[in-house]
Parts: sequence; structure tokens; C-alpha cells
Amino acid sequence: MAFSISPSPRVRRSPFFEATVADGVVSFTPYNHMLMPTSYGDPQAEYDRLINHVSMWDVSVERQVEIKGPDAGKLVQILTPRKLEKLQPGKGWYVALCDHRGVLLNDPILLMLDSNRYWLSIADSDVLFWARAVAGERKLDVEIFEPDVSPLAIQGPKADDVVGALLGEEALQLKHFGFRGMNLQGIPLMVARSGWSKQGGFELYLMDGSQGSHLWELVKEAGQPFGIGPGNPNPSERVESGLLSWGGDTDDQTNPFEVRMERYIDLDAPDDVIGIDALRRIQQQGVKRHQLGVLFDYDEKFGLYDRTSTVNYKGDEVGAITAHAWSPRLQQNIGLALVSRTVGAGDSVDIILPDGIKTSGKLCDLPFI
Amino acid sequence: MAFSISPSPRVRRSPFFEATVADGVVSFTPYNHMLMPTSYGDPQAEYDRLINHVSMWDVSVERQVEIKGPDAGKLVQILTPRKLEKLQPGKGWYVALCDHRGVLLNDPILLMLDSNRYWLSIADSDVLFWARAVAGERKLDVEIFEPDVSPLAIQGPKADDVVGALLGEEALQLKHFGFRGMNLQGIPLMVARSGWSKQGGFELYLMDGSQGSHLWELVKEAGQPFGIGPGNPNPSERVESGLLSWGGDTDDQTNPFEVRMERYIDLDAPDDVIGIDALRRIQQQGVKRHQLGVLFDYDEKFGLYDRTSTVNYKGDEVGAITAHAWSPRLQQNIGLALVSRTVGAGDSVDIILPDGIKTSGKLCDLPFI
Repeated sequence: MAFSISPSPRVRRSPFFEATVADGVVSFTPYNHMLMPTSYGDPQAEYDRLINHVSMWDVSVERQVEIKGPDAGKLVQILTPRKLEKLQPGKGWYVALCDHRGVLLNDPILLMLDSNRYWLSIADSDVLFWARAVAGERKLDVEIFEPDVSPLAIQGPKADDVVGALLGEEALQLKHFGFRGMNLQGIPLMVARSGWSKQGGFELYLMDGSQGSHLWELVKEAGQPFGIGPGNPNPSERVESGLLSWGGDTDDQTNPFEVRMERYIDLDAPDDVIGIDALRRIQQQGVKRHQLGVLFDYDEKFGLYDRTSTVNYKGDEVGAITAHAWSPRLQQNIGLALVSRTVGAGDSVDIILPDGIKTSGKLCDLPFI
Repeated sequence: MAFSISPSPRVRRSPFFEATVADGVVSFTPYNHMLMPTSYGDPQAEYDRLINHVSMWDVSVERQVEIKGPDAGKLVQILTPRKLEKLQPGKGWYVALCDHRGVLLNDPILLMLDSNRYWLSIADSDVLFWARAVAGERKLDVEIFEPDVSPLAIQGPKADDVVGALLGEEALQLKHFGFRGMNLQGIPLMVARSGWSKQGGFELYLMDGSQGSHLWELVKEAGQPFGIGPGNPNPSERVESGLLSWGGDTDDQTNPFEVRMERYIDLDAPDDVIGIDALRRIQQQGVKRHQLGVLFDYDEKFGLYDRTSTVNYKGDEVGAITAHAWSPRLQQNIGLALVSRTVGAGDSVDIILPDGIKTSGKLCDLPFI
């Protein structure tokens, strides 16, 4: 069943909205009080462009939380259990934000603009509230706000060709998660080598919301020779690549160790970091769950589900499948499982799909590809 | 243009989802990481049922943030600048949650279950994060979580008839914003005389998500003789009645004084209440904006907009229209304005609609009806 979305000022319009409509967007998902395009009507072509060519995405829903002021560095360290002393201006790091229980609140990219200015490029939760509460309670001298910044992603093996044609050598010299300020025909951008796929590419952080259509057109034009077309964070590719979707793959108990984020947690981070005590305790007492892949014994190609599947092992419920996808490259249905550590890669499990159908599968390590 | 919504486990399913689909829901709006029905295909009939008969709404998106434990009372007072000493178990109060700047974060109903247990029945923002941050930073002894509680609203002049037939005299004795625990054929409910309309009615807080369809059917059956049908928080009625939509009618600078919430702010609330200093300062220095109604000089019936209109007075921009609606009772286009206090009721203003059309209107006091 297809349902439509009612317009509301409570759900903010992307600067790229008109351009995506002109390019034939057919569906959206809500994210950070905005709407993100999820298809332009041809999922196969969208997947193919990302894997073999190049794709352009309206990911303005990746909102920035800007933290600015004399205590900005202090606050970002308090907010994340990853030691930040080696983070440099012009570099982004993937970080966990945890609450006092050590539960994951968001998994943003932290971009250091300078020693007194940072952006948290966030997943789908109100980090603005969290950061403001902590800053207010600790009486830190910072301003925290959502700036006029909206990323447009260029992803796929030919992304370098497009960005080279558009922005030149300067952009191509960026290393993974590196970024720099650039100007494209009067459009102010922060250009980063990043993006929510494993196919490589860039994100152009548009810093003037009035120029969304203009930027979209310029990218489209530069990408024409390389077969660019519109797309979106791809539900099959991201499961194949094992990328985390906060709020989908996580629940209100999930800690970073359960979802393969241990290398972003420094247990010797300062004692005033929120959640660090809880994370040390969790690590010491033993982590209860882990995220694995699952290869389904189920032939009919999955569509999208709005609920999780139940996973049973030898008659006992051991967790859930949080994401289901048809993998065009594996020619198989695959998924992401959040399950008890009593089961592991290689174990066969029974699965009850959201619509009640019973099937089975085998757990495996991530990523798939 | 109608766009569809992609299913995602990140966007949670309402317990009433299947029932609303069976009853012909056609559109939704995202709200608190869920979807709320916004129409069943006949807006006129939906309005008429609410104003003249009785309507039933899936408002499970009004999530509860439960605060429980020895410091629960202490925390809820810290979170709201309304003195709570006279709040009694079984009573709900409309409250403002403000940040340290005095900016409105949410406008929930605070329900006191007992002296150690409260629900915040929230508008569309992650209050869970805010409350947890404050509790964690102040080391309060509380648990904060989202319980399995999903309101179904029964609204309209015949709501008492329906609820009387369904739940008897006990429910009808409830006063405005009073609530009590009840059991309906094995379905655990918290029954409250409340709801997001000025037409009177109840909210049945379903406390077992597996029984959504069952409850929906029972309400539908009991309402049959009174002409009940499905509906939703009504965009025309709520503008006529001047009800606030947080995130739509407010922005990241809005304080409670600007949106007619002054009677829910006690400036002599305890000094450890978040935002109280800022609110005292704002009050002393003078509030800059206010919320008024606007009667449009524009005849073509408004549909729904996803953006605000610009308001100009004698050539100067003075604010925005945050909500636009056709009023069937006034037979006129009306709206809610958030404007500078340099203009007031009776002033004629120039308005630029979101689609660029220029028109005009007259400011007026709220509510319209």
C-alpha cells in the first residue's frame, strides 16, 4: 500500500526539494524533521548507478549541529567516548554519542572546523537537545545551533571523475573524511570525501539553502558524461556494506560494542565523558549482544519492511533482524541481525518475518561485501 | 503532488496502523519517529464529524516519556517553569519545557500517576533525550523511558455519549484533564478527558500495544449510533481554536510568552528550574513577538502548506504565518501569525504566500472561535 505525506511546516523542506521533484522523486522517508528521497521509481537503476557508475543524493536530512565558542572542544569531548586530542581541523571522525547508561544516542561524523567550532553531522535523533542540555547543565561557554548546511552526496566509482570536473584537483586531494571550504560559482560549500555507502565519493555541504537547485543542476551537468543520475542512501548496498542505521538497527538499550563501534570507543577517555563509566562497566561485565549478517533461506526478493523479524536459535528467541534486503550482487536475501552473543557466525537460525512467514538463515560476519 | 512513504523500522508502526488502513487512511505525517494518519480521503466529512458529531483518532504518536523513581517529582519540576506543588495524582497539566535560554522545547501534558511516577505526553521532539541528559547530569535517582502507551482520541460533541456507552459513568465523571486507570474487556487503559481539539472528548491511553485493533473496533462499535468515523487532529479546527503545533508554529527562538503560554509560566518557580532565569529576564526586558490570528483577503480555499508565509507591515517584515487553513465555520481563509509586538490585532498586513503569491489580511486575537 502506498500512502501519501501531508505537507506541514513541522516537516521542513530540503533546499534540493524542487530539484528532486523535477528529477522524478516518488517516495520519501522522514528523518530529522525533514523528508529524504528514497526512490526515483527505478530501484534497479539506482542500485546500478551507485555500484557501477555514479549517483547524486539529497541527504540534507543529515543535519549539522554546530558547537561554537571557547568551550566547544571541551563539550565535544564530553559528548563522545572517543579521545579527540588528535582530531585536526579539516578532518571528520565517526563517533558515538552515548547517554549516561552507555546507550548509543546517535552515530554522527564530527567535523572539526577549527579549535572553537565543530559540526556533528547527525543520524535521525535530536542531538541538538542533548548537546544543549549538557552544555547548559555544565555551564559551558558555547553556542549550539543548526546552521544553514545541507549535504548533497555524490557516490559511486565515478564520483572522483564528477568531482574532478566540478571542483578540480583541490577536491580530489582530500583524504577519507577530510574536508575543505570551497566556492563553486558563488555557492559556498564544505567539500568532504565521505558518504553513507562503501562505493566511495564526496559530500558537498551546501552552506546557502537558497542555492539548492543551482548546486543540483551543476552536479548533474558535470556528471552527465559519467552517467550520473539521482539516488539515495541505498537499502541494499548499505546492508551489503554493513552500515549502521541508528534508530533502525539500534534500540533503546543498544551500546556501541553491540553494533561494531568498539574501535571508536576509548575506555581511557577522560572521566567527565558522558557514559564512560557505564561503557567501562559494560566492557568488564561482558557485552550481551552483537551485530551480525544473516543469509536467508528465502527466495522471494525482499521489499522494504517497517518492522523487525524475530530470530530463534534451537527454540529460544535470541534477537531480531533489524534490516532486510535483496542483494543484487549476492543474488540472495540478506539482513542485519542484533542477536545474543550465545549465537555466532555460522549458526543456523529460525526467523519469523514481520508478516508472520517462518523461514531460516545462517548468521555470518559483516560486511557481506 | 503526492509522494509515498518508504517503510523503515526507523519509523515505528502504530498499534492502530492496521485498523486505520482497514478504515481507509490515505495520508500520514511523521511525528515522534512514527506516522500519524492525516486523512481518510474526505476532509469535509472529517471536519463535520469533529464539529457536529464524534470522531476517533490514532494519536499514538503522542508518545509518553515516563519518569519514575524517588527523584521523579524533583525532575519534572526542574524541567518545567510551572509550579507543580498543587498537581495531584490523576490530573494532567499543560506545561512548557524550556531550555536554558527559555526557548520552548515541547508543550506536553504532564500526567501525575503518583508521587514517584509521571508521564510527559509529548509533541514532536525528543524529550526523552532532554530529560535523560538533565537527570544524568544532576545525578537524579529516576528511570526515564518510553512505555508501551498509545493514545486513541475520541473528540466531538457526542464524545461523552460514546465514552458513556463504552466505559460507563465512571469515565464521564472525569473533569477536564483528569484521568484514571480502567479496564475494557481485558484492555488496560488510562482514560483521560483531554484531546487536541476544542470540541471536547477523551483520550484512551492504550497500555498494551498488541491490542490496538481490538480497542479500535470496540470504540467504532460503541460510536456507531452516534455517527462516529475516523479522523485526525484537524488542521482547520485547530487553527480556528488557536491550538499550538510545536515545531510548526514555533522556531528555535520561540519562548512561551510569544505563543500565549504565559499562564503556564510561574516566574516564582524554584531557582533550579531550567530556563527560569532566562524567562525572568525575557519578561523584564520585554517580549518581542506574539502569536495572533490572521483573516486573509484571499478567496481561493487554502490547502496544506509545508512552509510559512512572510508578513509585512508598511513595507517592513514583521514575522511569519506559521499555519494556513480554510475555516468552514467562518467561510474564510485564516492563519496563525508569529509576529513582532510592533503590530497587533486590527492591523492590516501584506502577506507573501509560500508559493510567492502576494495577498493581504487583518491580524486578530485568538482563538477565532
